[in-house]
This record gives sequence, C-alpha cells and structure tokens, in this order.
Amino acid sequence: MSDNTINLQEKLAKFSEHWSPRVIAEMNDYQFKLAKIQGEFVWHSHADTDEVFIILDGEMTLEFRDKSVPLAAGEMYVVPKGVEHRPVAPRECCIMLVEPRGVVNTGNTGGSYTAQNDVWL
Amino acid sequence: MSDNTINLQEKLAKFSEHWSPRVIAEMNDYQFKLAKIQGEFVWHSHADTDEVFIILDGEMTLEFRDKSVPLAAGEMYVVPKGVEHRPVAPRECCIMLVEPRGVVNTGNTGGSYTAQNDVWL
Repeated sequence: MSDNTINLQEKLAKFSEHWSPRVIAEMNDYQFKLAKIQGEFVWHSHADTDEVFIILDGEMTLEFRDKSVPLAAGEMYVVPKGVEHRPVAPRECCIMLVEPRGVVNTGNTGGSYTAQNDVWL
Repeated sequence: MSDNTINLQEKLAKFSEHWSPRVIAEMNDYQFKLAKIQGEFVWHSHADTDEVFIILDGEMTLEFRDKSVPLAAGEMYVVPKGVEHRPVAPRECCIMLVEPRGVVNTGNTGGSYTAQNDVWL
C-alpha cells in the first residue's frame, strides 16, 4: 500500500469518539472526514454548503423537519445547504462526510456537540 | 428508501459500459460519479483540479510516472492536480470519482476514451 493510499477501515480503527469527525483527505478546498456516531445529534444547518453523508458501516437516520430518511451502509445522501437536519443512530454507525474545509459539525447551532475542526487522522 | 437516497450498488447495476462515468450526486459545484473500468486507460492529467478515486468493488492500479499504486475496495486516493496518471484494471473494477462539475475523464489528453460528460444515472 502506498503512503498516500487511504484505507477506510484502517482509519476507522484509529479512533472511537462519537460525533468527532476526523479529516482523512483533502481534494482542492474540500475535505473527506470519517465520523462515528451514536445517539441523537443536534438540529442544525449549514447556510453556505451542501453536505454529503456516505454510510460505511451500520445504519443511521437523517431527520428533517418534514421527513425522516433511513440510511444503511452503501448508501449516500446530499443534505442541501440551509436545510435543517439531525443525524440519529440508535447503534454506532460509521460515516464519511464530504464538505468544504472549515465546515463545523454543528453548523449554525453550536453547543456542546461542536467538535474541534480540521482534526486529521 | 427516500427518493433522494443514493444506493451505490443499485446505481452500479444500471449500467455496464467501461470508462463511462455516470453522475449520481452533486454537492455544490462538485459531482460524485460511478464508473466501471477494465483494461488500461490513457495517460492524462487534470490541470485545474485534484481528483478522488474511491474503490467500491474489485481492484485497480493507479499508475504514475514514478510509481504504481494498487487500490482495492474500501480504499481511496487523491490524485493531485496536474499529475499524470493512468488507471489500470485487469478485471472489472467499480469506482466512485469525486471532482468538480465539468471535468472530462481524459483530462488534457482527449482521444477515443473521452466520455460524454455530465451523464446522470
């Protein structure tokens, strides 16, 4: 394996904290982040950007104000900018996020779930 | 499953052509594309953008002028902008590409492998 090859399972094995995205790659000014989630996150939105969720292991639900979208491993979803959403996972779920560098996990909401940004694995 | 949920295996089942990327999602001005590849592609580079390869099924090699990087399902790689590369896959390999809208598969090289751009699944 090359030094620059990113193995998703190897990266996932390197951290255990929930709701704490870790950057694994940059493409131009976008970042690919891994996160482990469990429980109910806070309602929030990102005013300036869409946000991509790719489910790697497990199951989660993306709650919106008008619908609830179940997602399982091998599925992805684009949350449009400005749309309030809340990730929920009864059991641990591993996801990849794609979004511009600088996006904060709690968006416009802030609070105790706000993770340090730009933390690389 | 929501109308907006993207199931990668379901999308992959919808086409069979090699070297013919299909757009499955947009995030801001970036596109997520699926491709099935087999054989040797042309050497090319993208002057203005990095390009992300995520391997979904099978194995491929990213050849560079100074190294050869084997990649398998569950691995990803960021090809830096301007760097010549050539994807090679002895057997069919299914990949996801992430890059700005408008990027042509053969980059600066053109030729018979150039696929129609912006084809959605």
